[in-house]
Amino acid sequence: MPRPLVLHPDRLFPADPDIRAIARELYGSVERLPIVSPHGHTDPSWFAENAAFGNAAELLLLPDHYIFRMLYSQGVPLEQLGIGDREADPREAWRLFAERYHLFRGTPSRLWLDWVFAEAFGIDVRLDGGTSDFYYDTITEALTTDPFRPRALFERYGIEVIATTESPLDTLEHHAAIRDSNWAGRVVTAYRPDPVVDPEFEGFRDNLARFSQLTGEDCLSWQGYLAAHRKRRAFFASMGATSTDHGHPTSSTADLCEAEAEALFRKVSTGAFVPAEAELFRAQMLTEMAAMSLDDGLVMQIHPGSLRNHNARLFEGFGRDKGADIPTCTDYVHALKPLLDRFGNERDLSLILFTLDESTYSRELAPLAGHYPCLKLGPAWWFHDSPEGMRRFRRMTTETAGFYNTVGFNDDTRAFLSIPARHDVARRIDCGFLAELVAEHRLEDWEAAELAQELAYGLVKRAYRL
Amino acid sequence: MPRPLVLHPDRLFPADPDIRAIARELYGSVERLPIVSPHGHTDPSWFAENAAFGNAAELLLLPDHYIFRMLYSQGVPLEQLGIGDREADPREAWRLFAERYHLFRGTPSRLWLDWVFAEAFGIDVRLDGGTSDFYYDTITEALTTDPFRPRALFERYGIEVIATTESPLDTLEHHAAIRDSNWAGRVVTAYRPDPVVDPEFEGFRDNLARFSQLTGEDCLSWQGYLAAHRKRRAFFASMGATSTDHGHPTSSTADLCEAEAEALFRKVSTGAFVPAEAELFRAQMLTEMAAMSLDDGLVMQIHPGSLRNHNARLFEGFGRDKGADIPTCTDYVHALKPLLDRFGNERDLSLILFTLDESTYSRELAPLAGHYPCLKLGPAWWFHDSPEGMRRFRRMTTETAGFYNTVGFNDDTRAFLSIPARHDVARRIDCGFLAELVAEHRLEDWEAAELAQELAYGLVKRAYRL
Amino acid sequence: MPRPLVLHPDRLFPADPDIRAIARELYGSVERLPIVSPHGHTDPSWFAENAAFGNAAELLLLPDHYIFRMLYSQGVPLEQLGIGDREADPREAWRLFAERYHLFRGTPSRLWLDWVFAEAFGIDVRLDGGTSDFYYDTITEALTTDPFRPRALFERYGIEVIATTESPLDTLEHHAAIRDSNWAGRVVTAYRPDPVVDPEFEGFRDNLARFSQLTGEDCLSWQGYLAAHRKRRAFFASMGATSTDHGHPTSSTADLCEAEAEALFRKVSTGAFVPAEAELFRAQMLTEMAAMSLDDGLVMQIHPGSLRNHNARLFEGFGRDKGADIPTCTDYVHALKPLLDRFGNERDLSLILFTLDESTYSRELAPLAGHYPCLKLGPAWWFHDSPEGMRRFRRMTTETAGFYNTVGFNDDTRAFLSIPARHDVARRIDCGFLAELVAEHRLEDWEAAELAQELAYGLVKRAYRL
Repeated sequence: MPRPLVLHPDRLFPADPDIRAIARELYGSVERLPIVSPHGHTDPSWFAENAAFGNAAELLLLPDHYIFRMLYSQGVPLEQLGIGDREADPREAWRLFAERYHLFRGTPSRLWLDWVFAEAFGIDVRLDGGTSDFYYDTITEALTTDPFRPRALFERYGIEVIATTESPLDTLEHHAAIRDSNWAGRVVTAYRPDPVVDPEFEGFRDNLARFSQLTGEDCLSWQGYLAAHRKRRAFFASMGATSTDHGHPTSSTADLCEAEAEALFRKVSTGAFVPAEAELFRAQMLTEMAAMSLDDGLVMQIHPGSLRNHNARLFEGFGRDKGADIPTCTDYVHALKPLLDRFGNERDLSLILFTLDESTYSRELAPLAGHYPCLKLGPAWWFHDSPEGMRRFRRMTTETAGFYNTVGFNDDTRAFLSIPARHDVARRIDCGFLAELVAEHRLEDWEAAELAQELAYGLVKRAYRL
Repeated sequence: MPRPLVLHPDRLFPADPDIRAIARELYGSVERLPIVSPHGHTDPSWFAENAAFGNAAELLLLPDHYIFRMLYSQGVPLEQLGIGDREADPREAWRLFAERYHLFRGTPSRLWLDWVFAEAFGIDVRLDGGTSDFYYDTITEALTTDPFRPRALFERYGIEVIATTESPLDTLEHHAAIRDSNWAGRVVTAYRPDPVVDPEFEGFRDNLARFSQLTGEDCLSWQGYLAAHRKRRAFFASMGATSTDHGHPTSSTADLCEAEAEALFRKVSTGAFVPAEAELFRAQMLTEMAAMSLDDGLVMQIHPGSLRNHNARLFEGFGRDKGADIPTCTDYVHALKPLLDRFGNERDLSLILFTLDESTYSRELAPLAGHYPCLKLGPAWWFHDSPEGMRRFRRMTTETAGFYNTVGFNDDTRAFLSIPARHDVARRIDCGFLAELVAEHRLEDWEAAELAQELAYGLVKRAYRL
Repeated sequence: MPRPLVLHPDRLFPADPDIRAIARELYGSVERLPIVSPHGHTDPSWFAENAAFGNAAELLLLPDHYIFRMLYSQGVPLEQLGIGDREADPREAWRLFAERYHLFRGTPSRLWLDWVFAEAFGIDVRLDGGTSDFYYDTITEALTTDPFRPRALFERYGIEVIATTESPLDTLEHHAAIRDSNWAGRVVTAYRPDPVVDPEFEGFRDNLARFSQLTGEDCLSWQGYLAAHRKRRAFFASMGATSTDHGHPTSSTADLCEAEAEALFRKVSTGAFVPAEAELFRAQMLTEMAAMSLDDGLVMQIHPGSLRNHNARLFEGFGRDKGADIPTCTDYVHALKPLLDRFGNERDLSLILFTLDESTYSRELAPLAGHYPCLKLGPAWWFHDSPEGMRRFRRMTTETAGFYNTVGFNDDTRAFLSIPARHDVARRIDCGFLAELVAEHRLEDWEAAELAQELAYGLVKRAYRL
């Protein structure tokens, strides 16, 4: 007998009956608000081509490193999941996952997936070894139908706007195709220059050559390189971008004089650099990007503190983004000072900070964002975009930075169907947090109602200029 | 229609009805206890001269960097608030604040201010743009009356003793005037030697010259300098001081031999030093101060970990204490070892540690204070003297250090009327925490009642020798 | 009138009635499960000789640094407790403790001790100065009876298996005696090589000489030294060991080539080394131990981050383990990389990580254990094996690592009677945490029931291969 799968209407609300009643009412007022997704990693070709997704494993398993990192940690080889091995049978990959679905108890993946199973596919039994084939068939069959094509799902879940993330080397042809089609869905890009900003990125020098080609600038000269960024940012903005995104190992910034910057660029662009110089160049580029943002109005996002590709053998065998990026201790106070000394008081600059190091929430990030006009705090991110993680974020930032120096929710995923699931979790957790404040008489009910709207919709629209 | 302002009698108690009932009863037993304020920044001239405060903005806005840092973070120029611009209309400054009062939702400033508005001024509508003038007029008018003069407020709120904080260069004339008046209020000073201990303090060398003048010692010689401290500490003690206060960037201590210390002093006193030497001198001075405390009995407070004046342009334009001090990662275990190796086992030394880095609560501070006889933990401080901050402090320190290695509450403010408001928040939060322990049967009710008295009154009296 | 001592059946469950009801039911299903104690510091001679414990102070006070560190922090000299002074009257030592029992309010020691008093000795009044003699007499008298001998207590509390911790230099004669007796109790050892792995351990070079004697290998040659470890590990395994334990100051690992390792060993074994070389040697030895674990199947435990013997004078006067070990900031991400680069993907290696730095739970440990097949997370440890500490552990690790990358509970104590008390606290807290997840509909009730069994019994059996 399979176990029933039911999404409880009060899920994720605090258990206390008074708080729960308040949370339920707040949530009712924001549950159906449009989704604004200012930062994520969906593939624009989905919306350009509107082709059907292939099968359950391809849709839900392969793009989701939250899932396969857990399976890998418990001894499942990635090849058997179909990663790096196109011969693997997707039904059998799905079965490996289904048989181990208990591993996800207590994790946000479990919450998101159950939402997708029940809400998107109407499945009413729980996933386990016994229901694996039923799941695989149900989902795979649904995917052949029109309501499960990307554009239909986009509309079904009330996505008002979604941002993808592209390198400056991307031609944005899919975005052009979307724009040129008759479809009303708003899919914008974001400018993520890591491949041409990080001297330690794979193929950096080739990337500079391609950057020259695309822009007609001499990207081996410092001025040409900066001009190329300006041109490319303008092109991205013309394709809807309102933001840039910077995934550096640290949040280091620098403010070198012209001659120093030029000399440093010569080193990194010729490959004659040591790691500290690569770090300094990334640091300098954050300040250069801030200068450009002041000119062109693009909102700047800094996502530091992940040691990428920690597992050397896995990286050799399978490449990037395989669940082996590990957070590290991150400093903001000293690291951001050069940039802030130059631009910190600019009210027209908008710089959104993220962290994977929760010890910085109350110590560094909230004090910084609660003072500098240019700074705002991105939401609980990546390993922390979970019920407990989001609660810690609110508890540790609100008292110093308030709600209005935060920017709403980011789903930050390439797992398309988890987007509405993630926004639902965020709205529930935020409403529960507000309900606690009301129940403790730290906030009036009408204020909580205003804030619920802001956290679900208003703040993100304004912060990202969407 | 303005929104009503009512302070709910159960505010800040946990929502669970059983816990709340216990908290309410505990709070009832401590609500009216006298206020002991062992550490703060009120101006002694208020109590010496007992002059009326000027207007709403002057009383509530200008002295409170919690308020203007938030307004600044949302784009309000400090000049328009009357900071660094005496021409600014205080009524208009107040309006800028009133119109943005929603920014403080979820912050402790909101709790303190509502208390001041309702409890001190009897206002029963909420602050916003529409009630701005009503607030400004009501408060400003009240301030012209005798019940709102400093001494009357001191008595009205049951302040048993308050400590101000002065530099060794201060003549303490206001304290003398208070002592010489007939007034029964107890206002004591505290010895904060940063201006003559920190070689990087503005005007350090001039300060040493003035230190010589005041004490008749040669403060350009190491022995004369130490003798000056001893004399000045004795003078402060004669004016009621029971404590010293040390606001260093880090908690570094050192225990140099006589010759090394003297050589180091020569460098810093002649200005021929590098930053590491300034740091080492501050470190050495903490140990020297501990030695003097063993002699004269002054309790020692160490408040490390704030990177002062992080915003370079703001500091140039407006000076210190403008809301731009940002906490940093702080080490205690290695930093305090030199001092503790020398004095850690002294039962007659009392050294109170504060932090802005909450990650040290359970990792370093509670283990240190739960072992060394000389150490106690100061309460949740500055950015953390808030409901969630105080709860984290208790949850993260009590299990290792217990309650009896803590020292009650510090308000640490120059916003006079927020003092009773802050003590009220602290008492409510502590009673709520105790109530949780009782409800989970981790503590008996009669023990919680004893502890509530200790946390509100007993511990601070004993720890600060007041 | 003495105060009554009663252990409330709902103690440590969350106060909310719905959550509490769920917790109570979960707890009921695991309360009586056997105790598996895979890591601790009980004395194997207790079980070998089965002699009666001497008196209340000897049983409960002297082996428990949680108790005397708190008393010391409040001014009680260790000598008066009978530490380092065999002349001290144990009854008077007990009285010093009894009169100060209020200091332990809010600490886990209080919970454990009350359990021991009420459950093990049937005492029904609270400990204080007035009941001190009654306690001392009751406990001391009970200890003369057979039901309070070590083996009887072992059986009474349902201990299925307990691991002690021994140095490679230990002859394990007590373990041999236990094995050779008719007693059915399972007492195993664990291999803790710090005395022969840490060049800075007291008597390191003498230890190497003894290591040679015991093994017949030349422990002053690198190959002989490694061979000695292999032999000794095999001997420990033959005496029941299933694990090794490594209490290094940091979690640094290294992977030197053969020649480098040999050269380094020459330095440390001849005493011609600097501190960084000692650190590198310890780091290299973790990787060597991992290699041996892959061969012999012993589970590896790494317990880093304690700065041992922080109080220099106390260490001189009283030696190790006197409550003066203080946690420090600990890095895992960079420190473990050399070992993980070599063995991280081995599914047959089991490496259990502990921490005293809670900021690493969500930032480093859960992401590492949620990815690498060889890693698991040890439970909240030492200063953190307390109600709040355990809750933080679950809240900060579960969402990223899940439950199945954790290993159940360790009591880690030499205070024998606190073992069942500690397991009881852990089971109650875990059931309370699961109950919260159920009440918030993040987990089904039947899943929580399965997990309660796993957290109390299943995980530890499998993780430690017991």
